[in-house]
Amino acid sequence: MTIDASKAGTADRRIRYGMVGGGQGAFIGAVHRFAARMDDHYEFVAGALSSKPAKAKASAAELGLAPERSYGSFKEMIEKEAKRPDRIDAVVIVTPNHMHFPPAEAALKAGFHVICDKPMTFDLAEAEALVKIAKKSGKIFALTHNYTGYPMIRQARAMVGAGLLGDIRVVQAEYVQGWLATDLEKTGQKQAAWRTDPKQSGAGGAIGDIGTHAMNLACFASMLMPEAVLADLQTHVKGRKIDDNDHILLRFKGGAKGMIWASQIAIGPENGLRLRICGSKGTLDWCQEDPNYLWFHELGKPMVRYTRAGHGAGPEAARVSRVPSGHPEGYLEGFGNIYAEAARAIRAVDAGEKIPAEVIFPTAEDGLLGMKFITAAVKSSKDGNKWVKI
Amino acid sequence: MTIDASKAGTADRRIRYGMVGGGQGAFIGAVHRFAARMDDHYEFVAGALSSKPAKAKASAAELGLAPERSYGSFKEMIEKEAKRPDRIDAVVIVTPNHMHFPPAEAALKAGFHVICDKPMTFDLAEAEALVKIAKKSGKIFALTHNYTGYPMIRQARAMVGAGLLGDIRVVQAEYVQGWLATDLEKTGQKQAAWRTDPKQSGAGGAIGDIGTHAMNLACFASMLMPEAVLADLQTHVKGRKIDDNDHILLRFKGGAKGMIWASQIAIGPENGLRLRICGSKGTLDWCQEDPNYLWFHELGKPMVRYTRAGHGAGPEAARVSRVPSGHPEGYLEGFGNIYAEAARAIRAVDAGEKIPAEVIFPTAEDGLLGMKFITAAVKSSKDGNKWVKI
Amino acid sequence: MTIDASKAGTADRRIRYGMVGGGQGAFIGAVHRFAARMDDHYEFVAGALSSKPAKAKASAAELGLAPERSYGSFKEMIEKEAKRPDRIDAVVIVTPNHMHFPPAEAALKAGFHVICDKPMTFDLAEAEALVKIAKKSGKIFALTHNYTGYPMIRQARAMVGAGLLGDIRVVQAEYVQGWLATDLEKTGQKQAAWRTDPKQSGAGGAIGDIGTHAMNLACFASMLMPEAVLADLQTHVKGRKIDDNDHILLRFKGGAKGMIWASQIAIGPENGLRLRICGSKGTLDWCQEDPNYLWFHELGKPMVRYTRAGHGAGPEAARVSRVPSGHPEGYLEGFGNIYAEAARAIRAVDAGEKIPAEVIFPTAEDGLLGMKFITAAVKSSKDGNKWVKI
Amino acid sequence: MTIDASKAGTADRRIRYGMVGGGQGAFIGAVHRFAARMDDHYEFVAGALSSKPAKAKASAAELGLAPERSYGSFKEMIEKEAKRPDRIDAVVIVTPNHMHFPPAEAALKAGFHVICDKPMTFDLAEAEALVKIAKKSGKIFALTHNYTGYPMIRQARAMVGAGLLGDIRVVQAEYVQGWLATDLEKTGQKQAAWRTDPKQSGAGGAIGDIGTHAMNLACFASMLMPEAVLADLQTHVKGRKIDDNDHILLRFKGGAKGMIWASQIAIGPENGLRLRICGSKGTLDWCQEDPNYLWFHELGKPMVRYTRAGHGAGPEAARVSRVPSGHPEGYLEGFGNIYAEAARAIRAVDAGEKIPAEVIFPTAEDGLLGMKFITAAVKSSKDGNKWVKI
Repeated sequence: MTIDASKAGTADRRIRYGMVGGGQGAFIGAVHRFAARMDDHYEFVAGALSSKPAKAKASAAELGLAPERSYGSFKEMIEKEAKRPDRIDAVVIVTPNHMHFPPAEAALKAGFHVICDKPMTFDLAEAEALVKIAKKSGKIFALTHNYTGYPMIRQARAMVGAGLLGDIRVVQAEYVQGWLATDLEKTGQKQAAWRTDPKQSGAGGAIGDIGTHAMNLACFASMLMPEAVLADLQTHVKGRKIDDNDHILLRFKGGAKGMIWASQIAIGPENGLRLRICGSKGTLDWCQEDPNYLWFHELGKPMVRYTRAGHGAGPEAARVSRVPSGHPEGYLEGFGNIYAEAARAIRAVDAGEKIPAEVIFPTAEDGLLGMKFITAAVKSSKDGNKWVKI
Repeated sequence: MTIDASKAGTADRRIRYGMVGGGQGAFIGAVHRFAARMDDHYEFVAGALSSKPAKAKASAAELGLAPERSYGSFKEMIEKEAKRPDRIDAVVIVTPNHMHFPPAEAALKAGFHVICDKPMTFDLAEAEALVKIAKKSGKIFALTHNYTGYPMIRQARAMVGAGLLGDIRVVQAEYVQGWLATDLEKTGQKQAAWRTDPKQSGAGGAIGDIGTHAMNLACFASMLMPEAVLADLQTHVKGRKIDDNDHILLRFKGGAKGMIWASQIAIGPENGLRLRICGSKGTLDWCQEDPNYLWFHELGKPMVRYTRAGHGAGPEAARVSRVPSGHPEGYLEGFGNIYAEAARAIRAVDAGEKIPAEVIFPTAEDGLLGMKFITAAVKSSKDGNKWVKI
Repeated sequence: MTIDASKAGTADRRIRYGMVGGGQGAFIGAVHRFAARMDDHYEFVAGALSSKPAKAKASAAELGLAPERSYGSFKEMIEKEAKRPDRIDAVVIVTPNHMHFPPAEAALKAGFHVICDKPMTFDLAEAEALVKIAKKSGKIFALTHNYTGYPMIRQARAMVGAGLLGDIRVVQAEYVQGWLATDLEKTGQKQAAWRTDPKQSGAGGAIGDIGTHAMNLACFASMLMPEAVLADLQTHVKGRKIDDNDHILLRFKGGAKGMIWASQIAIGPENGLRLRICGSKGTLDWCQEDPNYLWFHELGKPMVRYTRAGHGAGPEAARVSRVPSGHPEGYLEGFGNIYAEAARAIRAVDAGEKIPAEVIFPTAEDGLLGMKFITAAVKSSKDGNKWVKI
Repeated sequence: MTIDASKAGTADRRIRYGMVGGGQGAFIGAVHRFAARMDDHYEFVAGALSSKPAKAKASAAELGLAPERSYGSFKEMIEKEAKRPDRIDAVVIVTPNHMHFPPAEAALKAGFHVICDKPMTFDLAEAEALVKIAKKSGKIFALTHNYTGYPMIRQARAMVGAGLLGDIRVVQAEYVQGWLATDLEKTGQKQAAWRTDPKQSGAGGAIGDIGTHAMNLACFASMLMPEAVLADLQTHVKGRKIDDNDHILLRFKGGAKGMIWASQIAIGPENGLRLRICGSKGTLDWCQEDPNYLWFHELGKPMVRYTRAGHGAGPEAARVSRVPSGHPEGYLEGFGNIYAEAARAIRAVDAGEKIPAEVIFPTAEDGLLGMKFITAAVKSSKDGNKWVKI
């Protein structure tokens, strides 16, 4: 196996980006900056890092932005950057869910590429609108369903695509966390506060925050499309306004069935995203907490453990790997792969070229599917756990 | 920790048993004999090992039974043994499901104790009848939900009982196998043939064969009672007459929720019974394929691994352990614990004494609950996946 | 894979045995009785269970021996049993090391088969003598290096024998325990007391108790013979008279090299016997605490996990398996395999037949090799860690 | 636990560096560039990337260096950079071992900080000289024993320092790879070629390449100093000029003992660096391939699993963590921590301040210790495996 040499750095001009959100106290903003820096494809040059001016300013200074490129709002950033000769190429959106659509719309309409955190929008209507806006813009809209960037998830998808699992029969996904097992939101913890506030997160709590990741990953790796969902969205912590533990049944187009368990109140698992895909010829098993391994159970054979960049792992994993097998890669590298893929796409679009077929990243269509999933799951749960079409 | 010394053998007279079923080609019959022999509490002296006379005879000879105590039918065995001065004390039933009730009823009515494989009966009506018969008989009726015999399951139940998990919120159980991923029943494989034949197995396939184990174990360890079930019983292998992959949602009395995934078509897992119990104070995680470990995630603390008979494991695990920690015990030892517990109960009853409080084994009530579960799940699945009360 | 059907029980007359040692408070005596009972090949009918008459008597009663067959000494047992028409066939020796040779010699000379715990004798001279006595007797002498009875160790040996590993280059064995991390022997704990007393255990502590197991297993599975040893036998707990942590280098005949780490003071591992065999074509990895798995790393291929009785496991593992894969077997089953193999050998010898080629169990020659290993290691350590031929 | 916020980026001026080696076809050069970029502390602006001019030029272009700062030799780079107003601050050395000392000496003497790959030098004489040169220079010399940068290694060291393990008795280290199981160096593979050429790698093969890592890590985490070594350096692949599998015994100052197994011919493990530290109160266990976990076995308690940034992990791990627990970090992040620590030290030195006490990175003294270890091990092995003082 050859590790993709281009990963070592790049002679191309770096893609300049401005960030919306991600100031002091934020989590995912820093992750996006790490991911952007990973392969040297991007340069962080502007920001509207907080809706609070003082915080925005302090955050920008801490992160080394030029003072004149620290803006008071995303609108100001988009407006002013559009006029600079060294203007940004892309806008990165890392705000709470209710603040995804406005900057995304503005950025795309102003001719900027967009990289946006998930879930894509606050509700389904915004999502449908955004798909159209993105399409019309001709710009890249990348959604950071970052787990699709893990090399062994690429490997899994490639194996499914090559027919090594036969017909897919069952997909089991779980995304289990325990950090909301108590009413953390009442302590002032910022991450907990907005995620449990329907005004910021949307109608779904755990279903939007992590359930969408599980659904997205299940579909990405199994190459299946969901058809209907039966959901029991539960709230176990008293006083919480939103679901914190979800039990979900899935029907896929073509007849496969699935289950999703998404929980934020299962004490223990830290970020326990696991995916099992069972076909007529074999089963794949992957866990995000140990992401360099992919377990393959082939019919009539003993279990095999593929390792990222190791023997048996194919080019789909190799091209998103940076170091040899045995040298573990992790969350930031996987996240960085979404950024690297988006960079390739952005460069292609900017050069008027076709995006190479091997380049894969989640798009507005994936974001729309996620919003449909959330919407259907919420409906199913409210209606007494009936099947609802997605 | 002190290993229970009584396990080394016993001075008491061995309990004599006769077996129904379990002749050549059977699987579970041999397991029962191993389990009975494990702690030297039993003596295998009689049998109606097959409905086919030649096979019954050959099996008996192979197993060292005296020729005159190899019977042509369970009726003959019960009738003739009842008259012997050295008559058997107990009847062990290891036939396919449809042949559980008749010998159980006959044995209890003739004054024999009964140890019976699960699911308890062919249908719910038989189960309800058997509970009454068992109660009236005054004899021991033990159902071999053997997984409740594992020391670390006893440990889990003790921890739940001691409140270490707080209020139980979620129970996740899965029992995943892959041995029926192809149409094995068409090859003449005996185990596959009867399990996929509704006339022998009852209305449920995977739900009866392994789903009941998962439900039973979930309830045993969590100390919860199921209230309602929503089931999607699926058949993935063409031509199969019975479910081979089941997706189940559970509601427990008191408000906890659960999921069960029972599959016989997920290639890879060999006997993948896993149980996770999530409470407000902590989570327990146990897997049958590595049964000597129990993982405990306590709120705000790092994960702890308890080992059978190791530090932190309590008397409930110790009294069903035979060797020190680090010397793995397995399936037969766990199965043997059901037999050992039943032996203590049988001796107490025969001596006119009370069964010691510490002695735990699955009874006819557990078997009835299992049949209610199967019945409700089948109904739910047929009715479009609606909640059905158990 | 077909599980060996003969395991389900036997029509043959059970082999009657008398036990030397193994009374109340003993550990390994009970293990031998479990192992003997496992497959129904043996019957426990006599004993000289303790050198203390009252304890011997009480132990015998507790274990259900006929009072007249509970003897005050092994001499009395051998003398009196030899005269009985229903005399024992075999003597099982489970005393501390210094009391292995005398009963073994007496039993063999009186025409009894012997099953003896390890290390075989107190010193090398006894071992050399015993080999001759055993050979001359024509009787079976089986040494319970029980770890060679694990199915996946049989599988490993078969794979080595089939050339799947190529030329063996390196063998790494470790046997790590922590139970003697404190001066447990001063608390009156019987197991600790005799094992740390050179008058009962011989010149070696950890080297004899567990180092011999590691060496024996390494040689058994790799099919190599040791040539020389360089040992650093250490004592870490103050006041202890004997080694409790051993660092050992090995040279094998043919050029392979090895290391052994044997420790009783490494807190944590409970019975951490692990073996890695590295050849020019592949590496095998096995761990006693998870004995149903064998990991194979073939040159240029991803790692494969074989399971006991699962896909890819061969007849050598199958014939010493009792239940299907996924139903874990453990320590007692492995120990039981030594007893089952010895039973086959004893029956063959008693019938004047040749022992079947597939039957494998550790013999007096293996015991002699173990004593040579201990002797050489002790010498090496005393001489400043030089190479000493075995 | 709070993740160190400074990791999100920095307002300080980036440290400019020039790289020696690391052109096309190199492995570790790219790793250093990733590590330097990780936390945005560095800027890559100059290079003497290859001794071959065309390759140097092409590599520089590929990596986006300004043409005028791509130099033909390290001498030229040091000479010319010294005169630039925007001169580099540091020289990064990633050449084969024999080319470490010359650029390091030149850089330090010219007033540049140095970050150098390990082992530090070609031989002991160079190492002793370099320690003096580094000391005299007043500049930072950081050696990339990168495994000391892993958060859970920091955690282990902190636990040892806090006395949680009691007196350290035994340290077991292994660094196992299989990539040189065949004569890969004969295929033209660059990494294999120089590592097996004594003219480029020095007297040691595996001992220098990975054995030093194991020794360094063992000492770093256990806080022990090695006193003497007994080594058996072996060559298993025919025609190889240098050791490829090493068996080593260690004595530490204060009485602890250790073993190291370093292998490049054990097929299977990819980068299997494992460390176990056994004290009178507990044992720690860590494995590089799963670096986010640290297992702690405390005397008399069940095993605990600490996770990077999870419950129970302390500030020493947190300050070198970037993302929450459950979001795995890997090799590049650990490597990046050495760069981040070096950056803090460089900035302190450049500002005339004291290096903060919490900042830890391997220095020239560590490099010297490594060279003493290699030298002693080579001598021990040549002299028939005798103890040699370090």
